[in-house]
Amino acid sequence: MAEAALRREQSGASAGGAAHATVRTVIDRVRADGRTSLTAPEGKVVCDAYGIPVPQEGVANSAAEAVKLASAMGLPVVMKIVSPDILHKTEAGGVLVGLKSAEEVSKGYDTVLANAKNYKADAKIDGVQVQQMLKGGTEVIVGAITDGSFGKLVAFGLGGVLVEVLKDVTFRLAPATRDDAMSMLDGIQAAEMLKGVRGGDPANREALADIIVKVSQLVSDFPEISELDLNPVFATKSDATAADVRIVLDFEQKPRPVTRSNDEIVAAMNRIMRPKAVAVIGASAEAGKIGNSVMKNLINGGYKGEIYPIHPKADEILGYKAYKSVKDVEGVIDTAVFEIPAKFVAGALIVCGEKQIPGAVLIPSGFAEAGAPELQDEIVEIGKKYNVRLMGPNIYGFYYTPENLCATFCTAYDVKGSAALSSQSGGIGMAIIGFSRSAKMGVSAIVGLGNKSDIDEDDLLAFFEQDENTKVIAQHCEDLKDGRAFAEAAKRVSKKKPVIVLKAGRTSAGARAAASHTGALAGNDKIYEDVLKQSGVVRARSLRQLLEFARGVPILPTPKGENIVIITGAGGSGVLLSDSVVDNGLSLMSFPKDLDEAFKTFIPPFGASGNPVDITGGEPPKTYQNTVRLGLEDDRIHALILGYWHTIVTPPMVFAKLMVEVYEEMKAKGKDKPVVASLAGDVEVEEAADYLYQHGIPAYAYSTELPVEVLGAKYKWARGAGLL
Amino acid sequence: MAEAALRREQSGASAGGAAHATVRTVIDRVRADGRTSLTAPEGKVVCDAYGIPVPQEGVANSAAEAVKLASAMGLPVVMKIVSPDILHKTEAGGVLVGLKSAEEVSKGYDTVLANAKNYKADAKIDGVQVQQMLKGGTEVIVGAITDGSFGKLVAFGLGGVLVEVLKDVTFRLAPATRDDAMSMLDGIQAAEMLKGVRGGDPANREALADIIVKVSQLVSDFPEISELDLNPVFATKSDATAADVRIVLDFEQKPRPVTRSNDEIVAAMNRIMRPKAVAVIGASAEAGKIGNSVMKNLINGGYKGEIYPIHPKADEILGYKAYKSVKDVEGVIDTAVFEIPAKFVAGALIVCGEKQIPGAVLIPSGFAEAGAPELQDEIVEIGKKYNVRLMGPNIYGFYYTPENLCATFCTAYDVKGSAALSSQSGGIGMAIIGFSRSAKMGVSAIVGLGNKSDIDEDDLLAFFEQDENTKVIAQHCEDLKDGRAFAEAAKRVSKKKPVIVLKAGRTSAGARAAASHTGALAGNDKIYEDVLKQSGVVRARSLRQLLEFARGVPILPTPKGENIVIITGAGGSGVLLSDSVVDNGLSLMSFPKDLDEAFKTFIPPFGASGNPVDITGGEPPKTYQNTVRLGLEDDRIHALILGYWHTIVTPPMVFAKLMVEVYEEMKAKGKDKPVVASLAGDVEVEEAADYLYQHGIPAYAYSTELPVEVLGAKYKWARGAGLL
Repeated sequence: MAEAALRREQSGASAGGAAHATVRTVIDRVRADGRTSLTAPEGKVVCDAYGIPVPQEGVANSAAEAVKLASAMGLPVVMKIVSPDILHKTEAGGVLVGLKSAEEVSKGYDTVLANAKNYKADAKIDGVQVQQMLKGGTEVIVGAITDGSFGKLVAFGLGGVLVEVLKDVTFRLAPATRDDAMSMLDGIQAAEMLKGVRGGDPANREALADIIVKVSQLVSDFPEISELDLNPVFATKSDATAADVRIVLDFEQKPRPVTRSNDEIVAAMNRIMRPKAVAVIGASAEAGKIGNSVMKNLINGGYKGEIYPIHPKADEILGYKAYKSVKDVEGVIDTAVFEIPAKFVAGALIVCGEKQIPGAVLIPSGFAEAGAPELQDEIVEIGKKYNVRLMGPNIYGFYYTPENLCATFCTAYDVKGSAALSSQSGGIGMAIIGFSRSAKMGVSAIVGLGNKSDIDEDDLLAFFEQDENTKVIAQHCEDLKDGRAFAEAAKRVSKKKPVIVLKAGRTSAGARAAASHTGALAGNDKIYEDVLKQSGVVRARSLRQLLEFARGVPILPTPKGENIVIITGAGGSGVLLSDSVVDNGLSLMSFPKDLDEAFKTFIPPFGASGNPVDITGGEPPKTYQNTVRLGLEDDRIHALILGYWHTIVTPPMVFAKLMVEVYEEMKAKGKDKPVVASLAGDVEVEEAADYLYQHGIPAYAYSTELPVEVLGAKYKWARGAGLL
Repeated sequence: MAEAALRREQSGASAGGAAHATVRTVIDRVRADGRTSLTAPEGKVVCDAYGIPVPQEGVANSAAEAVKLASAMGLPVVMKIVSPDILHKTEAGGVLVGLKSAEEVSKGYDTVLANAKNYKADAKIDGVQVQQMLKGGTEVIVGAITDGSFGKLVAFGLGGVLVEVLKDVTFRLAPATRDDAMSMLDGIQAAEMLKGVRGGDPANREALADIIVKVSQLVSDFPEISELDLNPVFATKSDATAADVRIVLDFEQKPRPVTRSNDEIVAAMNRIMRPKAVAVIGASAEAGKIGNSVMKNLINGGYKGEIYPIHPKADEILGYKAYKSVKDVEGVIDTAVFEIPAKFVAGALIVCGEKQIPGAVLIPSGFAEAGAPELQDEIVEIGKKYNVRLMGPNIYGFYYTPENLCATFCTAYDVKGSAALSSQSGGIGMAIIGFSRSAKMGVSAIVGLGNKSDIDEDDLLAFFEQDENTKVIAQHCEDLKDGRAFAEAAKRVSKKKPVIVLKAGRTSAGARAAASHTGALAGNDKIYEDVLKQSGVVRARSLRQLLEFARGVPILPTPKGENIVIITGAGGSGVLLSDSVVDNGLSLMSFPKDLDEAFKTFIPPFGASGNPVDITGGEPPKTYQNTVRLGLEDDRIHALILGYWHTIVTPPMVFAKLMVEVYEEMKAKGKDKPVVASLAGDVEVEEAADYLYQHGIPAYAYSTELPVEVLGAKYKWARGAGLL
């Protein structure tokens, strides 16, 4: 709510009380009439109230009245039947365009009426609308839809059938700010059309943005408006006017679920993720059992808090005193890890509730994912009633390394670091663990979300936002239960820490698989694409990217500008790295003369001038050192991409150590810039890449793409967070 | 030439002798007049000769004559000034459209003349063209251009400014076959527009293809035609007519370089790549010298042919008798590897020529790439004169593993296999060697092409085409010296063996770097994209893809159809794998009922139905075995993608061994299908992935993209080769 108010403030689109009352009156009348859409005159009233420009018009009840109206507003005009019973006016022959004389208008009135009667004999006719005919300018569409997960969205695209074929439309969460609206004008493939092509006039961007903001405000103010179309809007050099308005209402819309306050979420998540005491419900002394693995991971992982095994009979498990029930434990318990059959979960959860345990980590499967939604509904109700937050069910558990906490049945993981990862799927969770171990990626947390019966991505965002051990948040998800809440949390959190999301089920085939897997509704990927970007989220395109971004992004310092320089020993790598620069939305710096000359003093006379700086292949370590030092030293340069070529003169580890030396030397002098490296050479480059990575320079062997993708992710985040 | 003749035959567009003579006469007249473009009536003559439909028209020399013409062809008409001195007719006010009556035509004649005189007082006026006015249908553009590397290209796109903004145009080498032309109609983003949208009529595809084929034939027959535009062409349900014709001539065009016959290329390349004797010009006994590394690599690599070190003073080098000159060697020499300073290369090359050595491998740098193009021109001339083929200069040399031949100064490489790789850049060559060794990729050859003064990608294609040790050809290139020759070779070779190309300098930034690196002209990437596809080439999008495709594509058997099935233990992997399937142009099989039921007998009751087959995470090895066996056995399924989830019940190596067992069992029964795998789990999955890969199943840990990309590459090849 605060967010919405803020946006309204920013957008300057606040519709005063009178405007609100006017629209409310129209909507109430539509509801009273049992209709679900507005007539054109009603649409005009709504547009007028919100300051959305529409053509001059009036409703005539006789041919003479039509001629009078037309003369007043100026010819040519458009005439349209006004009837609550005729929604598709064109189909009904109820629209005439380009009427150029009084005579044509007079005849037109009779024609429209006759056609309407012919189309539907018993249609109630309210008259014939006479409308100023717009012409010229660029035809665009502004609209709004209601999405199951994200709620109200405003849409923008060019008009015309070709655009429909190309699906060249862009979306933003409503209400949209003026900046959002401006970004929509640049967010379509055919954006150039708005700038005036072949000598044509550009469209008035301010006027278009204004309409977008107002439409987004209107649908936000009136949740009943499920769909809205201004199609076409004619945008000229001086203004923009909506030639046709279509508004559809849905009075049955479900209100958004009540959300917890951020403070409440954070308080509970802090106790669950950093517990002072953990109970293991279903702890087992028997090796091979999941309840045994969980105990061992807690103990061997080095967790320093209390561990309470809960077991109906045992007195002791793995050296820890066992209890029959959490109620028998004297002290406070923060987290209860469940590993008991699904059918016993509800009962045990009630006991946890009575014990006032704030969080249950539900490893068991056998709920919604296995055809038992009723079991899941039951535990969700219990969780709500007793205020126990539920993680899962159907998960591997979670890791929180700063507390040495492995609340999971998977293998322990102990490389501490600053990346917090989560996955909706257990398989992807295992891939996260394997990759992390293999790549020596330091993590703060790995969390399984599984069926997301309660705790979901936005709860994790709230926790990691204030978790000082986390610098980057990387999430795999298939659906977002409440996309609106996620987007709002991500927008806030991504201002402070990079949020990276791999949205699975992007494609329709993927979405089908997602649906069969979790019962989640397939999202329209274009909506996800636009809203995630609007929320400052960096979107990973593949599992490997999610993992590489989680690994590399927190290591890189935030760049201070867009000037990127490639320094390469292999000209061929320089070309491929340049391709990657463009592919990742980055740009190579154009050298001022002095900088070009400065680089040239270090490289052989036949080395190519400009950026990439091609130091040529046979050069000694000194050449890499001099050029990279210059690149770090000069404040006009903001990031470096290194292309190393393995030669006898400069072997891989010599290169790697020297680069780290220069990097650290310059960092000590306050010249802290993102540096990434691509290493071309024999297998020794793998060791060199590891060394560089461990010392703050994300580096990859045999790839000219990955290092630039990681740098690109850092830039995307920095731009989204307003730091560039 | 044979290729061109064949295409003409296939296209059925052979323009008879009379047509050819007609166009020749027009072009000769334009040349004689000192003009470089055709007038509209000349354009019509050319179109008529080649059977390209144009509107009825005639040239009037009086208003009365114009009225007569217009009445004969039917109103409305278009009128255009005819003047060799006015190229931009619209600008000159020399075009009037939509003249609907005799009166308008008569007035129009005078207006056009007056405007033309006003625009250019001394313009020679040949009259006023009266043309039938076309309307309705879809507006498209058919054109032709002359590209520096690829020669004549035919282009197709929709008409209108929006298409220009979106750059939605597609190209093919001219002459184009009917199939090429048909593929162009589907090759634009907005292809759907041609199929009729919003109830509109579809465009006549046959008629459009016919025009494309004829235009492509015309520009192929007359190299002087440098540019041609039919814009717009009106395509209706029944026909297609070019409303305006623009033909530009260039009489200064360079003829294509004379190319060698394939037999000649193959004969020389076979001697060079599989030599019986190698001379090392600049061999050295001194460790650390490149001439010493080359000798050691030849010896230690296990090469069984003769090795002749050439050195001005030494009697013996590394146990081999040394010679002062190749002329002192009694026997035949096939390959001379050069490692002497650039300035001495020309002299030594003449001696090689006199000794009739067919190939020189020129490791030295210091030629065109180092600002000494004259040194390079000199050796190219010597090569031509003595018929010595030149590899390089400025290269690492080459490897040909079937002969244990390491004719290079880099480290030896000995993992034999079926992938032949080449690179234009030395750095990329080192990446190829490092990756190959690291991934245990078997290779037949690795070749450095460097400055490509002579031997280039199409020479290698010709050699590898007939090399029984090579199953896949993977090439990195920055430019193609003769794109036409490459495309023709690739089209032929790719029918037999996959040809994979990483074209660097794709983007304008990359192209700039390519230009500064090799002096090569930047290619328009869309042209490369379309022509490579037309030639059956699989394009790699990144260095890592080039390498992974080279590794995986030859291992996979050729699929027999498009029905792909995912079998996964992790539902989450199934969703991501499905996304990858769509991203890579593949499609998931829709299960017939019996197949769905057959799979369901093996999986838990709550496992999802359909494709992906989600066997769920906790399943024992038997479940993977049963479902994969079914997938291999059923002939309606053509390829499998496996998603493995690491669990205690089915550990990684248990899974890997079992899969190989089933795979080999079914292969023995003739059920040989491509299978790829994605492994999600802890680090043990890396060993399992290696094991699977070594046994014919390309498998990747922590990635749901790479296995599907490799499968997609195999499919792209098979489709291009006409095997699917």
